[in-house]
Amino acid sequence: AVKTGVGRVPAHSATEPEPLCIFGTGDLGRSLGQRLLQSGYRVVYGSRKPHSCGPLPPGTQAMSHSAAAQSAALVFICIHREHYNFLETLAPQLQGKVLVDVSNNLKKNLYPEANAEYLQRLVPGAHVVKAFNTLSAWTLQNGPSDANRQVYLCGNSAEAKQAVAETATKLGFTVLDRGSLCAARELEDFPLQLFPEWRLPLRIAVGLTAFFYFYLLIRIVIYTYVQKGDDISFRIMVSLANKVFPIVSLIMLSLCYLPGVIAAFLQLYRGTKYRRFPDWLDRWMLCRKQLGLLALAFAFLHVLYTLIIPQRYYVRNRIAGSTILLNKTSAFDSALAWRSDSFLSTGILGFGLYVLLGITSLPSVSNALSWREFSFVQSKLGYLTLFFCTLHTYLYGWNKFLKPTSYPWYTLPGYLLCLIVPTVVLVLKFLLLLPCMDRSLTRIRQGWDRTNKVDDGEKSLLA
Amino acid sequence: AVKTGVGRVPAHSATEPEPLCIFGTGDLGRSLGQRLLQSGYRVVYGSRKPHSCGPLPPGTQAMSHSAAAQSAALVFICIHREHYNFLETLAPQLQGKVLVDVSNNLKKNLYPEANAEYLQRLVPGAHVVKAFNTLSAWTLQNGPSDANRQVYLCGNSAEAKQAVAETATKLGFTVLDRGSLCAARELEDFPLQLFPEWRLPLRIAVGLTAFFYFYLLIRIVIYTYVQKGDDISFRIMVSLANKVFPIVSLIMLSLCYLPGVIAAFLQLYRGTKYRRFPDWLDRWMLCRKQLGLLALAFAFLHVLYTLIIPQRYYVRNRIAGSTILLNKTSAFDSALAWRSDSFLSTGILGFGLYVLLGITSLPSVSNALSWREFSFVQSKLGYLTLFFCTLHTYLYGWNKFLKPTSYPWYTLPGYLLCLIVPTVVLVLKFLLLLPCMDRSLTRIRQGWDRTNKVDDGEKSLLA
Amino acid sequence: AVKTGVGRVPAHSATEPEPLCIFGTGDLGRSLGQRLLQSGYRVVYGSRKPHSCGPLPPGTQAMSHSAAAQSAALVFICIHREHYNFLETLAPQLQGKVLVDVSNNLKKNLYPEANAEYLQRLVPGAHVVKAFNTLSAWTLQNGPSDANRQVYLCGNSAEAKQAVAETATKLGFTVLDRGSLCAARELEDFPLQLFPEWRLPLRIAVGLTAFFYFYLLIRIVIYTYVQKGDDISFRIMVSLANKVFPIVSLIMLSLCYLPGVIAAFLQLYRGTKYRRFPDWLDRWMLCRKQLGLLALAFAFLHVLYTLIIPQRYYVRNRIAGSTILLNKTSAFDSALAWRSDSFLSTGILGFGLYVLLGITSLPSVSNALSWREFSFVQSKLGYLTLFFCTLHTYLYGWNKFLKPTSYPWYTLPGYLLCLIVPTVVLVLKFLLLLPCMDRSLTRIRQGWDRTNKVDDGEKSLLA
Repeated sequence: AVKTGVGRVPAHSATEPEPLCIFGTGDLGRSLGQRLLQSGYRVVYGSRKPHSCGPLPPGTQAMSHSAAAQSAALVFICIHREHYNFLETLAPQLQGKVLVDVSNNLKKNLYPEANAEYLQRLVPGAHVVKAFNTLSAWTLQNGPSDANRQVYLCGNSAEAKQAVAETATKLGFTVLDRGSLCAARELEDFPLQLFPEWRLPLRIAVGLTAFFYFYLLIRIVIYTYVQKGDDISFRIMVSLANKVFPIVSLIMLSLCYLPGVIAAFLQLYRGTKYRRFPDWLDRWMLCRKQLGLLALAFAFLHVLYTLIIPQRYYVRNRIAGSTILLNKTSAFDSALAWRSDSFLSTGILGFGLYVLLGITSLPSVSNALSWREFSFVQSKLGYLTLFFCTLHTYLYGWNKFLKPTSYPWYTLPGYLLCLIVPTVVLVLKFLLLLPCMDRSLTRIRQGWDRTNKVDDGEKSLLA
Repeated sequence: AVKTGVGRVPAHSATEPEPLCIFGTGDLGRSLGQRLLQSGYRVVYGSRKPHSCGPLPPGTQAMSHSAAAQSAALVFICIHREHYNFLETLAPQLQGKVLVDVSNNLKKNLYPEANAEYLQRLVPGAHVVKAFNTLSAWTLQNGPSDANRQVYLCGNSAEAKQAVAETATKLGFTVLDRGSLCAARELEDFPLQLFPEWRLPLRIAVGLTAFFYFYLLIRIVIYTYVQKGDDISFRIMVSLANKVFPIVSLIMLSLCYLPGVIAAFLQLYRGTKYRRFPDWLDRWMLCRKQLGLLALAFAFLHVLYTLIIPQRYYVRNRIAGSTILLNKTSAFDSALAWRSDSFLSTGILGFGLYVLLGITSLPSVSNALSWREFSFVQSKLGYLTLFFCTLHTYLYGWNKFLKPTSYPWYTLPGYLLCLIVPTVVLVLKFLLLLPCMDRSLTRIRQGWDRTNKVDDGEKSLLA
Repeated sequence: AVKTGVGRVPAHSATEPEPLCIFGTGDLGRSLGQRLLQSGYRVVYGSRKPHSCGPLPPGTQAMSHSAAAQSAALVFICIHREHYNFLETLAPQLQGKVLVDVSNNLKKNLYPEANAEYLQRLVPGAHVVKAFNTLSAWTLQNGPSDANRQVYLCGNSAEAKQAVAETATKLGFTVLDRGSLCAARELEDFPLQLFPEWRLPLRIAVGLTAFFYFYLLIRIVIYTYVQKGDDISFRIMVSLANKVFPIVSLIMLSLCYLPGVIAAFLQLYRGTKYRRFPDWLDRWMLCRKQLGLLALAFAFLHVLYTLIIPQRYYVRNRIAGSTILLNKTSAFDSALAWRSDSFLSTGILGFGLYVLLGITSLPSVSNALSWREFSFVQSKLGYLTLFFCTLHTYLYGWNKFLKPTSYPWYTLPGYLLCLIVPTVVLVLKFLLLLPCMDRSLTRIRQGWDRTNKVDDGEKSLLA
């Protein structure tokens, strides 16, 4: 035998390694088996019909359930929950074994108890560990480089969990222990979730879009129809969209920075950082990234809708018409040129920064940043983006708000409505940057506590 | 000595750790040595001229080959294959050692046998393991965070492979065992590959682009020249490109979804999912991601080519000309405005979704998605993208197909040709969504088998 | 107890696992404790007030410092450096323990010695290891999937480092040993850095932008004002920006490829690759990625500034004016159409390739490429990008350089200035591609040495 001396060679590697057992020869069982083989394990399948269970990965063998169970200490249960009941009869052979439950359900709350808990009830003498269920068959077969690296596990036996964790690590995954078997239900609900953290931001986006669409529809299309009898409903497709999208984008971008400002004022008011924020604020802060990315998506659409303006039939027709009808040059107004160019410039720079924020929130990019770099980009550059975009909107409005025609049916223009939140955020942030406020806040964030000024020598360490 | 109690401290760590040996003091040898040092190993170099082998990483030492070999159980061979022959003379010292072959060749099929197999033949008493050859010297030196994390290895001795695997894991890599030393050839061909999975999609893209370029060249430029004597060859640069790119993009996007639809119909026809797809379908399905990304690239170019239209000399000249020549306003046509704006809107929304699909296929983003989320984006949103882009093309055509001038030399317009595949895909997909079809397909994908209705209690588990 | 047989179950796992100890119950201490719990460790907190130290992760317990220290072999010091002094009194209890210093400072050079060295001086009998300080509290709590995976550590005891490394690995991190405790200062400066590798490229970008802004301001705005009395200062916002951005972008892109060309000529001149490059060249080569990404950012702004041209008040006003004033069609010039379309096409294709280069330098994408693929994209496609962008600029200039009006106050136009560096790079690269040069260079890069032609049988292996 090789005397390697490199690291620790396990005792049994001098002889044949002890096999792992897989119950079930379906897609998942075969994928898992292949991956285990590739990582150097021996694999044995347990099947009711060991001789006709279809193609298995080369190098493995199928036997009866009881024979397979006896040859291994760790058994992966790759069977649908509906067929678990036969395992009850194998209880003697499974006594003391580690059973890895990898199953998922098709819907939430299909059964009164989690699959893993049901399995534990059927085979009380075994050590059930819930694991691997959040991975797809494809990930299991091809390894962690093309899918989520994290394997969540839970179970009542620390040693059983350790054994499963070592196998997972050897397959290249990172293990996260979620505690006792009670957590199995939560793990089984995991793969059934569909963008849970995007739900609230998406609802806000849809709500704002719908509101402003109807609001502007009434103000622009219906008002024109009622007052002048003109049918300009074709504007719904581009003109309205290109008013609604930037409005929603700016509001959502400012909603992204509002909770941080509120939190800062709350800490200043309370004089400590050791009290929890209210729940709604916590939830709001957790979805800031999603709010920002949706705002970016709306800004992206706004850019495209703006850039195709010269190609619209309506615009080309109007330009041709106006040129000929008027047949005179309007005098060049330098102030108008300044305003128009500043409006476009601030928009472009704001969008450029927006894209930069989007790129740095890609997982692989944000991982490569140090904490200080990440917060520099997301906070400093974020506020700069908000500032540029707000300025862009102010320049858009300019002196329009002075004209009576801007208030049909006594309604405010959309751009004025959307300026409220960002202006509030920028003003509050400006207040926080004043030296006196900034000093208090920094002290509080470093652990100073107004109500408890005795320093006990082991204040929290701010990372 | 420290009594840590944290995890397992290997026996030899109480004393000096046993060293690893590296034969060869070139770039790769030095990079590898430095990295091993950083991970806590002791390193010894074997060199023919131990006293004049150039700068080595500080903390290592160089000795003669035989002395170095005797001091370690694991030897990295960082030497060109052409110089392997001297190892034959070291066979006694290398007896029972693990030799890690990290070499690559400059071309495929340069030698009759793989480098690792040749090494094994030269030193039959050693345990040769092929490993690390797919990593660059740069990756080896700087660790896995900036390059592929996976280390492929193969070899005939399970224990030797295990020893190498532990070293690789300690360096931060994920290990994939590819079996016996016969796989060495395959591993040695790995780093010589240049985008193998992109080859077919690229060929399709180039083929389609060339075909449509020539087709439209004949229909537009040559036809105009022959029939009217006008030389409009300048259109090749922008106008033709901006017709060809969207055509290729739409066809490739639909080619991306066609195999999935074919596979579904095949499963419905066969009544089971347990029979393999034909080879061509498998290969097609494996390159869907590449097809989609190329389609996105063409769509991106189409967007840019469209947006610069107002800046073309030709367009500015024509607008100025037409305005003056006609010197009359054409009446505003609301239906035309609707069509033009819908055409642009569907294009923008389609492109926005396209970009979203592209972003979610970035490795770091797709890794962060659960399986259900990934398939939601790539399937549901993918079909929505295809639908928008197809609608965009139909709106482009509108009633053009009714005009006889659209068929010069009896040829079909390009946009009609490119609508065939996406229309077929959308119609087939629509059929699959009908309740009766959907129900059958879902049953089949959950393991139901028309020919083998006896359920044996361990049906495959659908992840 | 479970007899798992899978891998090596550590001896103490049969009984209760030995706990880890954390001194300090602040943010970092609690985050770390929670993560250690999730990875299967037992955790004990040491606190001066064990009964009133606020909410701790469920499952942990707080005791006095000395009691906590005695129950564990590894102690995490999550306390501010200012409060370290009390540890001196615990020296007897900490004798032989591994102390993990995770602290950071608020500024560089705040103290004469590193925190970890100070700690070692206070408790000379303990084994101090500096580790984990480069991670944020958030990363520590949520695991490595959402932040940098690498944990840097240093310390004087190899065994103590090994114990800490095993814990870090179990938490899912990759460990990089940076040597003895002398490296602690460097590690403590790490999280205080703000984009160090971006500093030089950013300075170049800002310098070039400022220079060309002032240069063009004088040439265009001030010259016009002085000579003709016209105030065209509004052009600063868009017209000038859209001249400066592409100039800076092209220069920075070529600066990205210049060092590679210089290095090649240096190797050819020296006849060997075994001599180090001068320091300035090394530093230049290390920031090529950042130079390229900044060039892409400027190109992106140039594209946006170009695309909004038709929407500028100035442009719309001028078009309307010129059309009416002239009131005649200028004859269509086919050569001008060719030039205009080629100019736009090369720009678009260049930008498309630019974006491709940007995407492949995303960490997750470049990790998925083999070394050969990465160098193909970054080198071959990079030069193609440079070629397209340079051609785009030449087509922009066309015959403008012949007109005397292009040289107000005897200054060169901006586009001519910016063509110098890319033209030099392309010419030099072309020379390197000549067969004779290419052959010599390839030989040198494969290890051939002009001054030392004796091959010693173990030439470096080119990865």
